[in-house]
Amino acid sequence: MRISQLAAETGIPVATIKFYLREKLLHDGELTSATQAQYDDSHVQRLRLVRALLGPGGLSVAAARELLKQVSDPPDSGDAVLGVAHHAVNASANHDVDLTAAQELVQHFGWRTSSQDTGSQAALADALQGLEAAGFELAEGAMDLYARVMGEVAEFELAHVPTESTEAAVRYVVLGTVLVEPLLLALRRLAQQDAAARRFGLEA
Amino acid sequence: MRISQLAAETGIPVATIKFYLREKLLHDGELTSATQAQYDDSHVQRLRLVRALLGPGGLSVAAARELLKQVSDPPDSGDAVLGVAHHAVNASANHDVDLTAAQELVQHFGWRTSSQDTGSQAALADALQGLEAAGFELAEGAMDLYARVMGEVAEFELAHVPTESTEAAVRYVVLGTVLVEPLLLALRRLAQQDAAARRFGLEA
Repeated sequence: MRISQLAAETGIPVATIKFYLREKLLHDGELTSATQAQYDDSHVQRLRLVRALLGPGGLSVAAARELLKQVSDPPDSGDAVLGVAHHAVNASANHDVDLTAAQELVQHFGWRTSSQDTGSQAALADALQGLEAAGFELAEGAMDLYARVMGEVAEFELAHVPTESTEAAVRYVVLGTVLVEPLLLALRRLAQQDAAARRFGLEA
Repeated sequence: MRISQLAAETGIPVATIKFYLREKLLHDGELTSATQAQYDDSHVQRLRLVRALLGPGGLSVAAARELLKQVSDPPDSGDAVLGVAHHAVNASANHDVDLTAAQELVQHFGWRTSSQDTGSQAALADALQGLEAAGFELAEGAMDLYARVMGEVAEFELAHVPTESTEAAVRYVVLGTVLVEPLLLALRRLAQQDAAARRFGLEA
Protein backbone atom coordinates (compact mmCIF):
# COMPACT_ATOMS: atom_id res chain seq x y z
CA MET A 1 0.00 0.00 0.00
CA ARG A 2 1.07 3.61 -0.44
CA ILE A 3 1.79 5.94 2.44
CA SER A 4 -1.63 7.58 2.13
CA GLN A 5 -3.29 4.17 2.55
CA LEU A 6 -1.02 3.36 5.47
CA ALA A 7 -2.20 6.61 7.06
CA ALA A 8 -5.83 5.74 6.44
CA GLU A 9 -5.35 2.21 7.75
CA THR A 10 -3.71 3.31 11.01
CA GLY A 11 -5.34 6.69 11.54
CA ILE A 12 -1.89 8.29 11.78
CA PRO A 13 -1.28 11.39 9.61
CA VAL A 14 1.17 11.09 6.72
CA ALA A 15 3.37 13.81 8.24
CA THR A 16 3.65 11.80 11.48
CA ILE A 17 4.50 8.62 9.56
CA LYS A 18 7.24 10.52 7.71
CA PHE A 19 8.57 11.75 11.04
CA TYR A 20 8.70 8.16 12.33
CA LEU A 21 10.54 7.12 9.14
CA ARG A 22 13.12 9.89 9.59
CA GLU A 23 13.55 8.99 13.25
CA LYS A 24 14.04 5.30 12.34
CA LEU A 25 11.09 4.24 14.44
CA LEU A 26 9.54 2.77 11.30
CA HIS A 27 11.43 0.75 8.70
CA ASP A 28 11.49 2.05 5.13
CA GLY A 29 8.99 0.80 2.59
CA GLU A 30 10.02 -0.83 -0.66
CA LEU A 31 10.86 1.82 -3.24
CA THR A 32 8.76 1.49 -6.40
CA SER A 33 9.97 4.73 -7.96
CA ALA A 34 12.21 7.61 -6.97
CA THR A 35 9.40 9.20 -4.94
CA GLN A 36 7.13 6.31 -4.04
CA ALA A 37 7.39 3.41 -1.66
CA GLN A 38 5.15 0.48 -0.87
CA TYR A 39 4.25 -0.43 2.69
CA ASP A 40 2.81 -3.65 4.04
CA ASP A 41 1.30 -5.17 7.13
CA SER A 42 4.63 -5.08 8.96
CA HIS A 43 4.40 -1.29 8.82
CA VAL A 44 0.87 -1.31 10.18
CA GLN A 45 1.96 -3.46 13.10
CA ARG A 46 5.03 -1.38 13.76
CA LEU A 47 3.01 1.85 13.71
CA ARG A 48 0.56 0.47 16.26
CA LEU A 49 3.49 -0.36 18.50
CA VAL A 50 5.21 3.01 18.02
CA ARG A 51 2.00 4.83 18.87
CA ALA A 52 1.61 2.75 22.02
CA LEU A 53 5.21 3.37 23.10
CA LEU A 54 5.15 7.13 22.56
CA GLY A 55 1.60 7.62 23.83
CA PRO A 56 0.49 5.66 26.89
CA GLY A 57 3.90 4.01 27.21
CA GLY A 58 5.38 7.43 27.87
CA LEU A 59 8.67 6.65 26.11
CA SER A 60 10.80 9.31 24.49
CA VAL A 61 11.61 8.94 20.79
CA ALA A 62 15.15 7.95 21.73
CA ALA A 63 13.97 5.34 24.26
CA ALA A 64 11.47 3.93 21.76
CA ARG A 65 14.16 3.69 19.08
CA GLU A 66 16.50 1.90 21.48
CA LEU A 67 13.76 -0.55 22.45
CA LEU A 68 12.84 -1.21 18.81
CA LYS A 69 16.47 -1.73 17.88
CA GLN A 70 16.82 -4.36 20.57
CA VAL A 71 13.72 -6.27 19.56
CA SER A 72 13.97 -5.92 15.80
CA ASP A 73 16.37 -8.79 15.65
CA PRO A 74 13.89 -11.21 17.12
CA PRO A 75 15.28 -11.86 20.61
CA ASP A 76 16.01 -15.48 21.26
CA SER A 77 13.51 -15.81 24.08
CA GLY A 78 10.28 -14.36 25.37
CA ASP A 79 11.86 -13.26 28.61
CA ALA A 80 14.39 -11.18 26.68
CA VAL A 81 11.48 -9.31 25.07
CA LEU A 82 10.01 -8.77 28.50
CA GLY A 83 13.28 -7.63 30.03
CA VAL A 84 13.98 -5.20 27.21
CA ALA A 85 10.47 -3.78 27.42
CA HIS A 86 10.61 -3.48 31.22
CA HIS A 87 13.95 -1.79 31.00
CA ALA A 88 12.52 0.80 28.60
CA VAL A 89 9.58 1.68 30.84
CA ASN A 90 11.81 1.73 33.92
CA ALA A 91 13.85 4.63 32.62
CA SER A 92 12.83 6.82 35.54
CA ALA A 93 14.08 4.39 38.19
CA ASN A 94 16.92 5.60 40.36
CA HIS A 95 19.80 3.44 39.22
CA ASP A 96 22.12 4.66 41.98
CA VAL A 97 20.11 3.03 44.73
CA ASP A 98 21.66 0.22 46.80
CA LEU A 99 20.24 -3.02 45.39
CA THR A 100 21.27 -5.33 48.23
CA ALA A 101 17.93 -5.52 50.05
CA ALA A 102 16.01 -5.88 46.78
CA GLN A 103 18.30 -8.65 45.55
CA GLU A 104 17.97 -10.51 48.84
CA LEU A 105 14.20 -10.30 48.59
CA VAL A 106 14.17 -11.56 45.00
CA GLN A 107 16.42 -14.41 46.10
CA HIS A 108 14.13 -15.13 49.06
CA PHE A 109 11.22 -15.54 46.62
CA GLY A 110 13.37 -17.69 44.37
CA TRP A 111 12.63 -15.45 41.39
CA ARG A 112 14.74 -15.43 38.26
CA THR A 113 14.93 -11.94 36.85
CA SER A 114 15.92 -10.59 33.47
CA SER A 115 19.51 -9.58 32.92
CA GLN A 116 18.21 -7.06 30.34
CA ASP A 117 16.52 -5.02 33.01
CA THR A 118 18.03 -3.60 36.16
CA GLY A 119 15.32 -0.95 36.48
CA SER A 120 12.75 -3.20 38.13
CA GLN A 121 15.17 -4.20 40.88
CA ALA A 122 16.05 -0.55 41.33
CA ALA A 123 12.33 0.24 41.60
CA LEU A 124 11.98 -2.45 44.27
CA ALA A 125 14.99 -1.06 46.12
CA ASP A 126 13.49 2.43 45.94
CA ALA A 127 10.20 1.19 47.34
CA LEU A 128 11.92 -0.62 50.22
CA GLN A 129 13.96 2.47 50.98
CA GLY A 130 10.82 4.60 51.01
CA LEU A 131 9.21 2.32 53.59
CA GLU A 132 12.30 2.37 55.73
CA ALA A 133 12.77 6.13 55.55
CA ALA A 134 9.18 6.63 56.71
CA GLY A 135 9.59 4.12 59.53
CA PHE A 136 6.68 2.17 58.10
CA GLU A 137 6.84 -1.49 59.03
CA LEU A 138 4.89 -3.96 56.98
CA ALA A 139 2.73 -6.32 58.98
CA GLU A 140 4.13 -9.81 59.50
CA GLY A 141 3.46 -11.81 56.36
CA ALA A 142 2.59 -8.81 54.19
CA MET A 143 5.62 -9.09 51.92
CA ASP A 144 5.05 -12.76 51.27
CA LEU A 145 1.40 -12.07 50.51
CA TYR A 146 2.31 -9.28 48.07
CA ALA A 147 4.84 -11.51 46.32
CA ARG A 148 2.42 -14.43 46.14
CA VAL A 149 -0.47 -12.45 44.61
CA MET A 150 1.82 -10.63 42.18
CA GLY A 151 3.23 -14.01 41.21
CA GLU A 152 -0.29 -15.20 40.47
CA VAL A 153 -1.00 -12.06 38.43
CA ALA A 154 2.27 -12.40 36.51
CA GLU A 155 1.67 -16.07 35.75
CA PHE A 156 -1.73 -15.25 34.27
CA GLU A 157 -0.43 -12.29 32.29
CA LEU A 158 2.49 -14.18 30.83
CA ALA A 159 0.17 -16.94 29.70
CA HIS A 160 -1.57 -14.32 27.55
CA VAL A 161 1.39 -12.66 25.82
CA PRO A 162 0.55 -12.74 22.11
CA THR A 163 2.99 -14.84 20.12
CA GLU A 164 2.08 -13.92 16.54
CA SER A 165 4.81 -11.27 16.28
CA THR A 166 7.52 -9.59 18.29
CA GLU A 167 5.72 -6.26 17.78
CA ALA A 168 2.53 -7.59 19.30
CA ALA A 169 4.43 -9.10 22.24
CA VAL A 170 6.32 -5.89 22.98
CA ARG A 171 3.18 -3.79 22.70
CA TYR A 172 1.38 -6.14 25.07
CA VAL A 173 4.20 -6.07 27.62
CA VAL A 174 4.70 -2.30 27.56
CA LEU A 175 1.00 -1.42 27.65
CA GLY A 176 0.25 -4.23 30.08
CA THR A 177 2.90 -2.82 32.39
CA VAL A 178 2.11 0.87 32.08
CA LEU A 179 -1.68 0.81 31.71
CA VAL A 180 -2.53 -2.00 34.10
CA GLU A 181 -0.55 -0.48 36.98
CA PRO A 182 -3.00 2.36 37.69
CA LEU A 183 -5.82 -0.16 37.35
CA LEU A 184 -4.35 -2.41 40.03
CA LEU A 185 -3.73 0.52 42.37
CA ALA A 186 -7.26 1.89 41.99
CA LEU A 187 -8.68 -1.58 42.61
CA ARG A 188 -6.60 -1.93 45.76
CA ARG A 189 -7.92 1.35 47.20
CA LEU A 190 -11.52 0.45 46.39
CA ALA A 191 -11.08 -3.07 47.75
CA GLN A 192 -9.71 -1.53 50.96
CA GLN A 193 -12.82 0.60 51.27
CA ASP A 194 -14.98 -2.46 50.81
CA ALA A 195 -12.94 -4.36 53.40
CA ALA A 196 -13.24 -1.40 55.77
CA ALA A 197 -16.99 -1.21 55.28
CA ARG A 198 -17.32 -4.90 56.12
CA ARG A 199 -14.90 -4.74 59.04
CA PHE A 200 -15.96 -1.51 60.72
CA GLY A 201 -19.60 -1.31 59.70
CA LEU A 202 -21.23 0.27 56.73
CA GLU A 203 -21.40 4.02 56.48
CA ALA A 204 -24.51 5.46 54.88
CA MET B 1 7.46 18.30 78.08
CA ARG B 2 8.75 21.57 76.69
CA ILE B 3 9.07 22.29 72.97
CA SER B 4 12.81 21.59 73.04
CA GLN B 5 12.13 18.13 74.45
CA LEU B 6 9.41 17.57 71.90
CA ALA B 7 11.97 18.43 69.22
CA ALA B 8 14.49 16.02 70.71
CA GLU B 9 11.87 13.29 71.06
CA THR B 10 10.70 13.52 67.44
CA GLY B 11 13.86 14.68 65.71
CA ILE B 12 11.96 17.65 64.26
CA PRO B 13 13.58 21.09 64.68
CA VAL B 14 11.87 23.58 67.01
CA ALA B 15 11.41 26.03 64.12
CA THR B 16 9.54 23.36 62.13
CA ILE B 17 7.33 22.52 65.10
CA LYS B 18 6.49 26.22 65.48
CA PHE B 19 5.61 26.33 61.77
CA TYR B 20 3.25 23.35 62.22
CA LEU B 21 1.65 25.13 65.22
CA ARG B 22 1.08 28.30 63.20
CA GLU B 23 -0.34 26.28 60.30
CA LYS B 24 -2.69 24.44 62.68
CA LEU B 25 -1.23 21.07 61.75
CA LEU B 26 -0.34 20.60 65.41
CA HIS B 27 -2.62 21.45 68.34
CA ASP B 28 -1.37 23.97 70.89
CA GLY B 29 0.31 22.82 74.06
CA GLU B 30 -0.97 23.74 77.50
CA LEU B 31 0.26 27.20 78.47
CA THR B 32 2.21 27.16 81.73
CA SER B 33 3.37 30.79 81.50
CA ALA B 34 3.06 33.60 78.99
CA THR B 35 5.92 32.19 76.94
CA GLN B 36 5.95 28.50 77.74
CA ALA B 37 3.74 25.59 76.90
CA GLN B 38 3.75 21.95 77.85
CA TYR B 39 3.42 19.20 75.26
CA ASP B 40 2.52 15.56 75.73
CA ASP B 41 2.40 12.28 73.91
CA SER B 42 -0.52 13.43 71.76
CA HIS B 43 1.86 15.98 70.22
CA VAL B 44 4.47 13.33 69.55
CA GLN B 45 1.92 11.17 67.79
CA ARG B 46 0.54 14.05 65.78
CA LEU B 47 4.02 15.13 64.71
CA ARG B 48 4.81 11.64 63.46
CA LEU B 49 1.64 11.76 61.39
CA VAL B 50 2.27 15.28 60.05
CA ARG B 51 5.75 14.31 58.98
CA ALA B 52 4.38 11.24 57.19
CA LEU B 53 1.69 13.24 55.40
CA LEU B 54 3.97 16.03 54.20
CA GLY B 55 6.91 13.76 53.41
CA PRO B 56 6.21 10.41 51.76
CA GLY B 57 2.46 11.10 51.70
CA GLY B 58 3.15 13.98 49.35
CA LEU B 59 0.33 16.13 50.75
CA SER B 60 0.38 19.90 50.67
CA VAL B 61 0.09 21.77 53.97
CA ALA B 62 -3.50 22.70 53.03
CA ALA B 63 -4.43 19.11 52.16
CA ALA B 64 -2.83 17.82 55.36
CA ARG B 65 -4.73 20.39 57.44
CA GLU B 66 -8.00 19.43 55.78
CA LEU B 67 -7.33 15.75 56.42
CA LEU B 68 -6.41 16.39 60.07
CA LYS B 69 -9.49 18.54 60.58
CA GLN B 70 -11.70 15.73 59.35
CA VAL B 71 -10.15 13.10 61.56
CA SER B 72 -9.52 15.15 64.70
CA ASP B 73 -13.05 14.58 65.89
CA PRO B 74 -12.69 10.83 66.09
CA PRO B 75 -14.70 9.68 63.05
CA ASP B 76 -17.52 7.33 63.90
CA SER B 77 -16.13 4.44 61.91
CA GLY B 78 -12.91 3.00 60.60
CA ASP B 79 -14.08 3.21 57.03
CA ALA B 80 -14.59 6.95 57.40
CA VAL B 81 -10.92 7.28 58.41
CA LEU B 82 -9.96 5.26 55.36
CA GLY B 83 -12.18 7.22 53.00
CA VAL B 84 -10.90 10.56 54.28
CA ALA B 85 -7.30 9.40 53.98
CA HIS B 86 -7.82 7.98 50.50
CA HIS B 87 -9.51 11.15 49.42
CA ALA B 88 -6.50 13.16 50.57
CA VAL B 89 -3.97 11.07 48.66
CA ASN B 90 -6.22 10.99 45.57
CA ALA B 91 -6.00 14.74 45.10
CA SER B 92 -4.37 14.32 41.71
CA ALA B 93 -7.17 12.17 40.28
CA ASN B 94 -9.09 13.66 37.38
CA HIS B 95 -12.49 14.34 38.92
CA ASP B 96 -14.06 15.26 35.57
CA VAL B 97 -13.79 11.75 34.22
CA ASP B 98 -16.96 9.80 33.42
CA LEU B 99 -17.46 7.40 36.34
CA THR B 100 -20.05 5.13 34.73
CA ALA B 101 -17.77 2.26 33.72
CA ALA B 102 -15.94 2.39 37.07
CA GLN B 103 -19.16 2.36 39.03
CA GLU B 104 -20.47 -0.58 37.03
CA LEU B 105 -17.30 -2.48 37.74
CA VAL B 106 -17.45 -1.74 41.47
CA GLN B 107 -21.05 -2.89 41.45
CA HIS B 108 -20.07 -6.04 39.53
CA PHE B 109 -17.60 -6.88 42.31
CA GLY B 110 -20.21 -6.10 44.95
CA TRP B 111 -17.88 -3.63 46.65
CA ARG B 112 -19.09 -1.00 49.05
CA THR B 113 -17.01 2.14 48.71
CA SER B 114 -16.53 5.15 50.90
CA SER B 115 -18.75 8.15 50.37
CA GLN B 116 -15.86 10.28 51.72
CA ASP B 117 -13.74 9.50 48.71
CA THR B 118 -14.61 9.90 45.06
CA GLY B 119 -10.97 10.02 44.00
CA SER B 120 -10.44 6.26 43.97
CA GLN B 121 -13.38 5.71 41.62
CA ALA B 122 -12.06 8.53 39.44
CA ALA B 123 -8.66 6.80 39.42
CA LEU B 124 -10.33 3.55 38.34
CA ALA B 125 -12.25 5.40 35.63
CA ASP B 126 -9.01 7.01 34.43
CA ALA B 127 -7.29 3.63 34.27
CA LEU B 128 -10.17 2.09 32.29
CA GLN B 129 -10.14 5.03 29.90
CA GLY B 130 -6.39 4.67 29.41
CA LEU B 131 -6.81 1.01 28.44
CA GLU B 132 -9.61 1.85 26.04
CA ALA B 133 -7.80 4.79 24.45
CA ALA B 134 -4.80 2.55 23.74
CA GLY B 135 -7.02 -0.20 22.34
CA PHE B 136 -5.56 -2.56 24.91
CA GLU B 137 -7.91 -5.39 25.71
CA LEU B 138 -7.43 -7.28 28.94
CA ALA B 139 -7.38 -11.03 28.58
CA GLU B 140 -10.58 -12.85 29.49
CA GLY B 141 -10.72 -13.19 33.26
CA ALA B 142 -7.95 -10.65 33.94
CA MET B 143 -10.20 -8.07 35.59
CA ASP B 144 -11.75 -10.62 37.92
CA LEU B 145 -8.30 -11.90 38.84
CA TYR B 146 -7.06 -8.37 39.59
CA ALA B 147 -10.10 -7.65 41.73
CA ARG B 148 -9.80 -10.94 43.59
CA VAL B 149 -6.12 -10.56 44.47
CA MET B 150 -6.52 -6.91 45.44
CA GLY B 151 -9.46 -7.97 47.60
CA GLU B 152 -7.19 -10.45 49.34
CA VAL B 153 -4.50 -7.81 49.81
CA ALA B 154 -7.03 -5.29 51.15
CA GLU B 155 -8.54 -7.81 53.57
CA PHE B 156 -5.11 -8.53 55.03
CA GLU B 157 -4.14 -4.87 55.23
CA LEU B 158 -7.37 -3.82 56.92
CA ALA B 159 -6.91 -6.53 59.53
CA HIS B 160 -3.67 -4.77 60.49
CA VAL B 161 -4.83 -1.16 60.81
CA PRO B 162 -3.63 -0.03 64.23
CA THR B 163 -6.48 0.81 66.55
CA GLU B 164 -4.67 2.54 69.43
CA SER B 165 -5.30 6.03 68.06
CA THR B 166 -6.84 7.84 65.11
CA GLU B 167 -3.40 9.31 64.34
CA ALA B 168 -1.84 5.89 64.09
CA ALA B 169 -4.69 4.63 61.89
CA VAL B 170 -4.47 7.58 59.49
CA ARG B 171 -0.70 7.35 59.29
CA TYR B 172 -0.96 3.63 58.52
CA VAL B 173 -3.58 4.15 55.82
CA VAL B 174 -1.81 7.04 54.09
CA LEU B 175 1.65 5.48 54.20
CA GLY B 176 0.25 2.04 53.43
CA THR B 177 -1.41 3.48 50.35
CA VAL B 178 1.39 5.69 49.07
CA LEU B 179 4.45 3.64 50.01
CA VAL B 180 3.16 0.15 49.30
CA GLU B 181 1.99 1.02 45.78
CA PRO B 182 5.48 1.24 44.25
CA LEU B 183 6.38 -1.95 46.12
CA LEU B 184 3.48 -3.86 44.56
CA LEU B 185 4.31 -2.56 41.08
CA ALA B 186 7.98 -3.47 41.35
CA LEU B 187 7.04 -6.95 42.59
CA ARG B 188 4.68 -7.41 39.64
CA ARG B 189 7.41 -6.59 37.12
CA LEU B 190 9.89 -8.89 38.79
CA ALA B 191 7.32 -11.66 39.11
CA GLN B 192 6.61 -11.28 35.39
CA GLN B 193 10.29 -11.73 34.63
CA ASP B 194 10.33 -14.86 36.75
CA ALA B 195 7.20 -16.16 35.03
CA ALA B 196 8.78 -15.38 31.66
CA ALA B 197 11.97 -17.17 32.59
CA ARG B 198 10.00 -20.25 33.57
CA ARG B 199 7.70 -20.09 30.57
CA PHE B 200 10.13 -19.26 27.81
CA GLY B 201 13.33 -20.71 29.14
CA LEU B 202 16.01 -19.22 31.29
CA GLU B 203 18.36 -16.66 29.85
CA ALA B 204 21.92 -16.74 31.12
